[in-house]
Amino acid sequence: MSEQKGLKNRGYAHADVDDRRRAVEEFTGTSLESISKYCFSSETASKNIENMIGAVQIPLGFAGPLQISGDYADGRFIVPMATTEGALVASVARGMSVINDGGGAKTRVFWDNMTRAPVFRVRDIGHAREVMDWIEGNFDSLAASAASTTSHGRLVSVEPYPTGRNLFLRFLYDTGDAMGMNMATIATETACKVIEERTGAVLVSVSGNMCSDKKAAAINMIKGRGKTVVAEALIPAEIVLRRLGADTASIVETGYRKNMVGSAMAVTIGANAHAANMVAAVYIATGQDPAQVVGGSMTVTTIENVDGDLYIAVRMPSVEVGTVGGGTRLPCQSEALRMIGCLGDGGARKFSEIVAATVLAGELSTIAAQTAGHLGKAHSELGR
Amino acid sequence: MSEQKGLKNRGYAHADVDDRRRAVEEFTGTSLESISKYCFSSETASKNIENMIGAVQIPLGFAGPLQISGDYADGRFIVPMATTEGALVASVARGMSVINDGGGAKTRVFWDNMTRAPVFRVRDIGHAREVMDWIEGNFDSLAASAASTTSHGRLVSVEPYPTGRNLFLRFLYDTGDAMGMNMATIATETACKVIEERTGAVLVSVSGNMCSDKKAAAINMIKGRGKTVVAEALIPAEIVLRRLGADTASIVETGYRKNMVGSAMAVTIGANAHAANMVAAVYIATGQDPAQVVGGSMTVTTIENVDGDLYIAVRMPSVEVGTVGGGTRLPCQSEALRMIGCLGDGGARKFSEIVAATVLAGELSTIAAQTAGHLGKAHSELGR
Amino acid sequence: MSEQKGLKNRGYAHADVDDRRRAVEEFTGTSLESISKYCFSSETASKNIENMIGAVQIPLGFAGPLQISGDYADGRFIVPMATTEGALVASVARGMSVINDGGGAKTRVFWDNMTRAPVFRVRDIGHAREVMDWIEGNFDSLAASAASTTSHGRLVSVEPYPTGRNLFLRFLYDTGDAMGMNMATIATETACKVIEERTGAVLVSVSGNMCSDKKAAAINMIKGRGKTVVAEALIPAEIVLRRLGADTASIVETGYRKNMVGSAMAVTIGANAHAANMVAAVYIATGQDPAQVVGGSMTVTTIENVDGDLYIAVRMPSVEVGTVGGGTRLPCQSEALRMIGCLGDGGARKFSEIVAATVLAGELSTIAAQTAGHLGKAHSELGR
Amino acid sequence: MSEQKGLKNRGYAHADVDDRRRAVEEFTGTSLESISKYCFSSETASKNIENMIGAVQIPLGFAGPLQISGDYADGRFIVPMATTEGALVASVARGMSVINDGGGAKTRVFWDNMTRAPVFRVRDIGHAREVMDWIEGNFDSLAASAASTTSHGRLVSVEPYPTGRNLFLRFLYDTGDAMGMNMATIATETACKVIEERTGAVLVSVSGNMCSDKKAAAINMIKGRGKTVVAEALIPAEIVLRRLGADTASIVETGYRKNMVGSAMAVTIGANAHAANMVAAVYIATGQDPAQVVGGSMTVTTIENVDGDLYIAVRMPSVEVGTVGGGTRLPCQSEALRMIGCLGDGGARKFSEIVAATVLAGELSTIAAQTAGHLGKAHSELGR
Repeated sequence: MSEQKGLKNRGYAHADVDDRRRAVEEFTGTSLESISKYCFSSETASKNIENMIGAVQIPLGFAGPLQISGDYADGRFIVPMATTEGALVASVARGMSVINDGGGAKTRVFWDNMTRAPVFRVRDIGHAREVMDWIEGNFDSLAASAASTTSHGRLVSVEPYPTGRNLFLRFLYDTGDAMGMNMATIATETACKVIEERTGAVLVSVSGNMCSDKKAAAINMIKGRGKTVVAEALIPAEIVLRRLGADTASIVETGYRKNMVGSAMAVTIGANAHAANMVAAVYIATGQDPAQVVGGSMTVTTIENVDGDLYIAVRMPSVEVGTVGGGTRLPCQSEALRMIGCLGDGGARKFSEIVAATVLAGELSTIAAQTAGHLGKAHSELGR
Repeated sequence: MSEQKGLKNRGYAHADVDDRRRAVEEFTGTSLESISKYCFSSETASKNIENMIGAVQIPLGFAGPLQISGDYADGRFIVPMATTEGALVASVARGMSVINDGGGAKTRVFWDNMTRAPVFRVRDIGHAREVMDWIEGNFDSLAASAASTTSHGRLVSVEPYPTGRNLFLRFLYDTGDAMGMNMATIATETACKVIEERTGAVLVSVSGNMCSDKKAAAINMIKGRGKTVVAEALIPAEIVLRRLGADTASIVETGYRKNMVGSAMAVTIGANAHAANMVAAVYIATGQDPAQVVGGSMTVTTIENVDGDLYIAVRMPSVEVGTVGGGTRLPCQSEALRMIGCLGDGGARKFSEIVAATVLAGELSTIAAQTAGHLGKAHSELGR
Repeated sequence: MSEQKGLKNRGYAHADVDDRRRAVEEFTGTSLESISKYCFSSETASKNIENMIGAVQIPLGFAGPLQISGDYADGRFIVPMATTEGALVASVARGMSVINDGGGAKTRVFWDNMTRAPVFRVRDIGHAREVMDWIEGNFDSLAASAASTTSHGRLVSVEPYPTGRNLFLRFLYDTGDAMGMNMATIATETACKVIEERTGAVLVSVSGNMCSDKKAAAINMIKGRGKTVVAEALIPAEIVLRRLGADTASIVETGYRKNMVGSAMAVTIGANAHAANMVAAVYIATGQDPAQVVGGSMTVTTIENVDGDLYIAVRMPSVEVGTVGGGTRLPCQSEALRMIGCLGDGGARKFSEIVAATVLAGELSTIAAQTAGHLGKAHSELGR
Repeated sequence: MSEQKGLKNRGYAHADVDDRRRAVEEFTGTSLESISKYCFSSETASKNIENMIGAVQIPLGFAGPLQISGDYADGRFIVPMATTEGALVASVARGMSVINDGGGAKTRVFWDNMTRAPVFRVRDIGHAREVMDWIEGNFDSLAASAASTTSHGRLVSVEPYPTGRNLFLRFLYDTGDAMGMNMATIATETACKVIEERTGAVLVSVSGNMCSDKKAAAINMIKGRGKTVVAEALIPAEIVLRRLGADTASIVETGYRKNMVGSAMAVTIGANAHAANMVAAVYIATGQDPAQVVGGSMTVTTIENVDGDLYIAVRMPSVEVGTVGGGTRLPCQSEALRMIGCLGDGGARKFSEIVAATVLAGELSTIAAQTAGHLGKAHSELGR
C-alpha cells in the first residue's frame, strides 16, 4: 500500500515530511492541515526528531519584564512562556510585577553538574570494593577517556554506591552550556569500557537510574542534578496588601499549611504550589527537554513574614537546561532564548536563574491567589 | 514609551499579538520572526494564553502504527509525538514495531477520578471531627453544590485527612472527558463555601497539596489521580533476539538492576527508564498540560522472563488527560487527537490507554537499547 | 562437643535456658551472669522467643502524670518508658508537666485497621481484572474464610493494586485489642488459598510489602496502618515563656524550619523531631513490637502560634499496638500496661492515645529545648 | 500527698527507685513487683534514665553461631537477640545455619560518619553564600572548636544546603566507637556559636532534621549515617532446596515481586522484608538506641539466581551503633556485646558488620518462608 510506503519513508527533506504526512492522513482518515505548517527547515530538525510530519504550534506569551539580580542574570527580562493553560501567563506576569515593585528577584547558582550513573554487575562485594579502589586510583585515566569523546564536557567525579552484586557509579560532569545528558552518556559509555576491561565488572546499563533522569528522585533533590538554583524576593507589606489582595500573615499561612504540611501529608518530593507549570512553559518555549519538568517539580518554596513584609524563595535542586544543542537550535526556540540573552555559549547558568526567578513569580502569584480565594475565578475567566 | 504600551496591550486580536511582539522585539533587541508565524486564531487561543506574541513550533513526528487491545482503545494507532530530542521517536517506533510483532499491546483502565484537596483551618481536632462528621452526613448536599457549577463533573467522594489544626479534604470527581482540574477547582470552591458556612472551618486554600497537582507525590502513586492505566506486551523470545539485539534474560536483568534496584537506591517515586519522555511528547502534541508529565514520571515498569519470552508492563497511576477543553481546542492539537480518534466526547480513557501503550513501547526500546549497549550510539547518530 | 549440645537444646524449661546459656558462655568465653537473671517463667516466654538464655534488663522510668482527654483515654496517666538514653524521660516528663499546666492533652483515634498485603502472580492484566472482579463479587466468602481462622479478627475490605503480572491485595482487618499482625497473616493465608483455587492466581508471598510492616512506607502514612491517632495541646503564652525558656514565636520558627523545611529537604516520610524516641521507650516497656517504631517515625508534628499561645499537635498515621497477646503477656510488660489501665480487652485504642500524647509531650519538650539552645547541655548533664 | 512526693523524688539511689515505684504503685493502684527486680546499679543507670522505678525484662535468645568474614568481624558469632516476637529468633537462626552451610556471610563497611545538621536563619541567599564561603575558608577553626568538646570525635566535613532564609549545615564526624549522636550534638553546638559570632547567621536549632536522626529520610539512605554496611551470602542450589523448602528461582521471584515491586508500589524508603526486626532485637540486646531501628528499616535486600545458587545481600545505609557509652555500659548489655567480642574500643565497625550479617540471615529465612508458604504456620506454632 502507498500509505505504508509513506509511513516507512525515513527521509528528512521537506518532501519526505509531506510524503509521510499524507500517508498518516490516509491511514488515519484525518486532515493534518495545521500540522503541515512549520517555518523551520526539516533538515535542521533532523537531529531533533524522526518521522517528522510537521509541527505542533504552542501559543507563546511572555511575562515580565522582571528585574533579576543574580550571579549570572542581571537586568530586566521578558520571559517567553509557551502554554495552553489559560491564566498561567497572566498569573506569572502579576507575580513578576509585584516582585519588581519590591525591588526585583535575587538568584544564586549553588551547584552545577550533569550526572549519568551506570550500573555494573560485580561478582560480590569484595569485587565491588576492588572496582571502587581501582576507580579511586585511576580517576585521571577515566577522566581522560571521558574527555576523548567530547571537547565541552569534563568528568568531575565518580561516586560509588555498592549494593550486593550491583555497583552504581554516579558520574558527575561539567557540561558547560549544554544540558549535557547525551554528552554525559557518551563519555560514560567510553569510561565504562575502560572499567570493564580493567576490573572485570560487567556493564549492565549505562543508566542505572541513580542518575536520575526524568524521574522524581530524592537523589537529585539532595545532591542536585544540572543546576541547583535559589531565587528570592522580599515584598513590602503595603505592596502585598495592595497588589495581592491578602496580607502577609495569610499568605504565610497558606505557604505553611499547603506547601509544608500538605506536601508532608502527601509524601511529596519537594514542597511547592505549581513550580512545574512555569518550568514547563519556559522549557517548551526555549527548546529544553520538557520531560525534565520533573526535576523542576521538586522545588521547595518557603514563605516568611519578615517584619510584616513577605519573603518568598524557591530552591530548585535540579534545573537541567542548556543554551546550546538540542531543541535550542530551532528557530522559534532560538528566538525565545535570544529574548532573554541566553542563546549559545555562556547562557546556561544565566538561563537557570531566569527559570528560577520565573518559578518564584508564579509561586508568589498562585499562593497569593489561593489565599485571597480567587483561584477558580481566575481560571473560569481566563481559562477554559 | 511605545514599547511599554505594546507590552501592556491586553487584547486578543491578531493585531494585538503583533503589537505586543513588536514591543518585545524592541525591548529585547531581538527579531521574533519565526515566533510570529502561527496558523491558529489568536482569539481562539484567548482561553489558552495571555500576552500572546506568537507561537513556538515543536517538530511533530509519529510512532506506529501500534496494535492496541484495550478497554477503550482497540485497533492500530499512529501516535503523534512532539519533541526536540533526537532518537526519541525512532526509539518508540522501534518499540511499537516489536510489540506489534508480538501481537500488540493490551491496556486496562483501573481507576478514573480527578482530585482537588483544599486545606481548612480548624480550631482543634475536636472541631476537625465535627467537620468530618458533618461532611459524612451531608455528602449529598455537597455534591449538589459542586454540581451547580458544572454539567460535566460529578463529585464522587470526599476523603478527610486531619492533622492538628489542619483539615485536608480530598475531593474526587468524575470529570468525563475533560482533564478536569479547573472543573474540580471551581466545584470544590463552591462546596468549600458551604462547609465554611455550616461548620466554621476556615478555607485556607482550595489546593492544600494533597490533590496533588504537578508534584511528585506518593498519594497520587498510591491512590491515583486522573486515570490509572496498565499496559502490557509479551514478546516471543525469537523476536526479542532478532529485533532488540539482546536476549530476554539480559533485558530482564537491566529491568531489575536499573528500574528496581537503582530506583530504590535513588529513592524514586515510580520505577521506570524514561516514561516522562513519551508522556511529554504525546502531551505536547495533543494539547495536554505538559506540567502533568510529573504524574507520568511515577510509572512502574516491570519486565519478566516468561518461558523465554519477554513480558513487559507499565503501570501509570496518574494519567491526567482530557480530550475536550484546554489545549485540545487548538487546531494542531485537535488534529493530533483526531489522528488517534480521541478528540472530543468519549475520548479521554481511550487516549489514556494510548498514552500508556506508547510509554510501554518507549520503555521496551530504551531498556533493550541500554542492555544491548547502544544508547549513546543512538543518540550520537540521531541526536545532537 | 558439649557446648554444641547446649546450643542445640530446644527446650523451654528453666533448666534448658541454663543449659543453653552455659553453652553460650563456653562458646564465647563470656560470663552471662546478669543475663541469667530474669523473673518470668521461661515456659510463659515460649511464645515470645526461642533459644532463650535469659533476659536483658532495660531501665524503666516514668513520665507524668499527664492529663489526657481522648476518645478512649480519659484521666491522668503515668506513662512507663524503658530506655537507656539519658535525658529522654526527663524531657518527656517536662513536656507533660507543661501540657498539664495548659489543661492537658486531647487525643482522637481517626482510623483503626491492621493490614496484610499478599502479592499474587497473574497471567496478565486481563487475568488481574478477573481476579479483582471475583474478589469484589465474593467478598463475603473471603471474609468467612478469614474468619474461620480467628475469633477476634474481622476482614473489613480488600484493596487491589494491579501492576503487570503482579496483583497486590491489601487486606484490612479489625483485630480488636491485638496488634493483629499474626492474626492478619494467618487469616490472609487462608483467604489466599481460596483466591488461588477460584481464580488461578498464584500466591507468591503472603506479604507483598504493600502491607507495609516495619518499613517506612508512604502507603502507611497516607492510608494508615494500625491506629491513626492525633494528639494536641494548647499552652498559654505565659506558661510557654516561664516553663520552656523560649517564646511561642521562636518555638514556632523551630517547628517550621526544622520539622517542615528540614524534613522536606531531607525527603523524609513524616515531619517530626524525635517521635521514634517516645514510641520506642513506651513500646519496649509495654511489650509492643519495637520494630514497629518505624511506623511511629512517620509522625507529623505541627506547631502554631494561636494568639500568642502555643498549639502543638502530632499526627501518628500508623500506631501498631495491642494490649493482648505478644509481649504484653510477660509480667513486667503486663505491669507496665496496667499502670495506664490498658492491659487486656478494651485497651488498644486507649493505649494508642496514650502513646500519641506521650509523643506530643516529647516533641514539645525537645523542640522547645532546641529553640532555647540547650539540647546538648541536657544531654551532657543527664546523658552519657 | 506522699504519693506526689515519691513521684517527684529525683534521686538515683536504690531507695529512691523504691520510693518512686511505691508512689507509682499507689497512684496507679498497680503492683509493680516484676518491674522492681533489676540486677544493675541504679546509680550506674543514672546516665541512662531518669525517674527510674525498676526495669523491664526482655527475653534474650541467641542466633548462631554464624560464620562471618568481614572487614572487622572475622569468625563464628553467636548473636544476642532480645525480642518478644515468637518465631523471630528461630527464623534468624535457621537463616544463619543455611548461610553457614553455604560458607558463611561476607561483610564490608563502606562508609562511617555520624551527622548533625543545625539550621540557621540567614538574612537572604546572599548572606547564605557568605556563610558558606566563611565555612569553607575556616573549616580548620570550626574543626578545632568542635574538637575542644570531645577527645573522641573529629569533624570531617560540613555540607551546606541553602534554601531561602534557611541554611542547613550537615556536620559529619568520625566518632570512633561511640554511636556519637551526643558527641556530635555538643561539638556542633560549639561550632555553631563560632559561626553565629563570625557570620551573623542565627542558630535556630542544633538539629534541623537534615541529620536525620530517627526519621525515615532519603538523605540517610543516599548519603549514609553511622555506618554503611553490606553483607552477602551465596547458598548452593542443593542447600537452598533441602534447607529452605523452595528453589532458588521461586525465592528470587519473591524477592522481586515483594521487595522490589511491592516496595516501589508502597513508596518505601528501602526495600526489604523485615530488616527492622533483626535490628530491633540486636539493638535492644546490646544497649543501642532502639529508635534508630528506623535507620535499619531502610535496608535494601537483593536476591539473585547465580547459576542456580541463591545470592542474597543486604545494604544497610545507616547503622547507627556504638560499643562504648550509652546503654552499652549496663551489665546485661555489656555481656551481650561481649558475647560477640564487641564491647568497648575497636568494637563499633565490627558490631555493625554483625548487625548486617544478622539482618541478612533474617531476610533469607523470612523471604524463603514466605516463598514456601509457611509464614503464618511458623507464627501460629511458635508465636502468639
